[in-house]
Amino acid sequence: MYLCGATVQSNPHVGHLRSGLVFDVLTRWLLKQNYKVTLCRNVTDIDDKILHKAIHEERPWWAVAQHYERAFQEAYSLLGCIPPTIEPRATGHVTQMVELMEELIKRGHAYASNGDVYFDVRSFEKYGSLSNQKPDDMLAATDSEHAASKKDVRDFALWKGSKPGEPAWPTPWGAGRPGWHLECSAMAAMYLGDNFDIHGGGLDLVFPHHENEIAQSKAAGQKFANYWLHNAWVTTAGEKMSKSLGNSLIVFDVLERIRAIELRWYLVSAHYRSNLEFSDEALQESGAAFRRIEGFINRASEIVGEESIANVTIDPGFSAAMNDDLGVPAALAVVHEIVTEGNIELQKGAKSDLKVLSKTLHQVRAMLDVLGVDPLAANWNSSREDSKVLKEVIDALVANQLQMRQQAREHKDFAKADEIRDSLANAGIAIDDTQNGARWSVMESEN
Amino acid sequence: MYLCGATVQSNPHVGHLRSGLVFDVLTRWLLKQNYKVTLCRNVTDIDDKILHKAIHEERPWWAVAQHYERAFQEAYSLLGCIPPTIEPRATGHVTQMVELMEELIKRGHAYASNGDVYFDVRSFEKYGSLSNQKPDDMLAATDSEHAASKKDVRDFALWKGSKPGEPAWPTPWGAGRPGWHLECSAMAAMYLGDNFDIHGGGLDLVFPHHENEIAQSKAAGQKFANYWLHNAWVTTAGEKMSKSLGNSLIVFDVLERIRAIELRWYLVSAHYRSNLEFSDEALQESGAAFRRIEGFINRASEIVGEESIANVTIDPGFSAAMNDDLGVPAALAVVHEIVTEGNIELQKGAKSDLKVLSKTLHQVRAMLDVLGVDPLAANWNSSREDSKVLKEVIDALVANQLQMRQQAREHKDFAKADEIRDSLANAGIAIDDTQNGARWSVMESEN
Repeated sequence: MYLCGATVQSNPHVGHLRSGLVFDVLTRWLLKQNYKVTLCRNVTDIDDKILHKAIHEERPWWAVAQHYERAFQEAYSLLGCIPPTIEPRATGHVTQMVELMEELIKRGHAYASNGDVYFDVRSFEKYGSLSNQKPDDMLAATDSEHAASKKDVRDFALWKGSKPGEPAWPTPWGAGRPGWHLECSAMAAMYLGDNFDIHGGGLDLVFPHHENEIAQSKAAGQKFANYWLHNAWVTTAGEKMSKSLGNSLIVFDVLERIRAIELRWYLVSAHYRSNLEFSDEALQESGAAFRRIEGFINRASEIVGEESIANVTIDPGFSAAMNDDLGVPAALAVVHEIVTEGNIELQKGAKSDLKVLSKTLHQVRAMLDVLGVDPLAANWNSSREDSKVLKEVIDALVANQLQMRQQAREHKDFAKADEIRDSLANAGIAIDDTQNGARWSVMESEN
Repeated sequence: MYLCGATVQSNPHVGHLRSGLVFDVLTRWLLKQNYKVTLCRNVTDIDDKILHKAIHEERPWWAVAQHYERAFQEAYSLLGCIPPTIEPRATGHVTQMVELMEELIKRGHAYASNGDVYFDVRSFEKYGSLSNQKPDDMLAATDSEHAASKKDVRDFALWKGSKPGEPAWPTPWGAGRPGWHLECSAMAAMYLGDNFDIHGGGLDLVFPHHENEIAQSKAAGQKFANYWLHNAWVTTAGEKMSKSLGNSLIVFDVLERIRAIELRWYLVSAHYRSNLEFSDEALQESGAAFRRIEGFINRASEIVGEESIANVTIDPGFSAAMNDDLGVPAALAVVHEIVTEGNIELQKGAKSDLKVLSKTLHQVRAMLDVLGVDPLAANWNSSREDSKVLKEVIDALVANQLQMRQQAREHKDFAKADEIRDSLANAGIAIDDTQNGARWSVMESEN
């Protein structure tokens, strides 16, 4: 699978991450069905925006790219994405780009002109097939700067001749830098070969980027991708989320307001081809739905314990939904149903059928794991060990007080018993008298 | 600064990380003195070991390299290293290597032979100057496979001609792959220019790797590095730590037994040119020394609070030690002295001079920060927020019990007061009656 990754020129906002998450869910679903997955997600480490940012920030373009590459990696990791098999950088593949251009020129599909190299759109009959357009119907690009260099106004640049002050790499046609489209064809061929299964990316990439990738790779004699998947956008006020909306949408800032697992849940729970309108209210609502499921998992696992979910056979309803164009909303309906069953079982208290409870718990966890949101998965639990000692202390302290409350009750000193209960409440501890004795939990803060 | 980074073919053991930590301390010390630091630490993503591992693990060589590149990044990050300005991969710089070889051939310092390209050692008069050897005294390399291709047995490969089944990149002299030495000359020039300040690496790299880098870069007309720094090894039983010693030395495993900040403290506290004999006992001893300093910081900061240490003027004794060839042991003697002063001030209790205490605290923290081991620095405190709520609960619970103990004492019910104290002890809470009232801490476990 090849996924068009980030142009690393800013901290990622929520919209930037959606495609990484959508294809992470696809990866997890394929792995669950025992497919081997090789995922190549590129890093576009040179383009006009990065060069502008470098001038603005007074540091080299590659320092800008490296800085934001790390920011994207951190954001993907915070949101629980399985790291790709390979994350190649565009500028690391000039050799392969030159080879591809040589092949295209040899086959009559590209030409060098004034230091640039262009793809000859008229030479490639199927141009427009992905976006369902005919070359003759396409409008000319308003690229007046390069019009004189092109045979046809629709031709696009494979390689951009060197401009003063810009980084440049040597080629047989002069020094310059990669055009955006070429890098993905070159890297896909290097890492996935002439023919691979799935190519993914955001909907905005269908034309011209993916159309151009197809032209480059197929004109060079490759079969290229068998299937194309495009995710829709995260929108704000109905428009594709944009950097200009400010810092409040930067992932790291959003994660100050909401847990990472809830942000992920929000971003993966819609169908990948549906736009997702972002707001803090929508995040809160979606978070509440998730916490209902999480509450079941926490209560059930306290009773029946945690087991490995690696070999759980996924519910056929969930599978059918996922196999129907990655139908996450329908798959989540199955999750909610099973959680409801589990909660009914939980409410039976001491009469709960532990086998049913365990089966329900592990089914729910296995389904959530496909979406990357099993709250008991290791990646969400890194801080758990740190808290463990403190929780054990609280366990012991609370046990002390409960024992004293029990003694007070036995001595009919109900005022004392109530006082202990109140003092626990003041300390932020809620007591739940269950069949298995009293259990404590930290009360939610009022904010 | 250019630092020879990892050959990414296994999870890092403790010895692999020492050079990253030593040069992180140097970076921090330079930054503290208001130098601008550009740090380039390369990733060697192709070599014989990676290719062998790829065959053994039945996955592509680049998937092996990417996997272990991430493992190294994670280990550096866990140990609190500031990320380098750029982490370039060798295979991403074939274009630059070809240009460098063309220059060397043009100048008569290199030659192509049977698909390989070699550096002509006799052509470079100063060969051996770094390792203080004369070319005529050097033994012939026992490289019988390539002896027939070389003009002189001491000549070394810049480029290795393609072998069947191995990855290869095109060059004017045929397809092949980079020799190890060439990559560092090519990347240093790309990112740091023809002349830069510091080149670092492990002592084992002096010859032949760094000697060959100097030959390549200077013979091509560059000034190359002004200063060379080499760190000594982490040893086990007096020998350089090696992978064959088993998993117990892998960083991730060591971090199951010891906190990251204590492992870092251990690795940076010796002089960088001294070997460091590794053992769990040595780790424990070193950890105890660190916890004494940490205890002072925790107690003092509870009293005088936390301030930014960005503008603290470092003690001149510490500075003098650091400026004398990065003399960390002498610098640490200054830290210990000031901690002792601080502890004396702390012991005065209510009579402590808060100004002295604050000054001492922030001086110690600023010095530790140069070494990357200030326990209150943000990177060591990521899990702090998670624990905060739990600590507040414990605060309130313990306050309840202490109030009850106080009441019991006032009623001369000393049995009851002792019972409460014991029950707290059983819960793992130690009570310390101070001038400012009773304070609790979680007791160390007996293991």
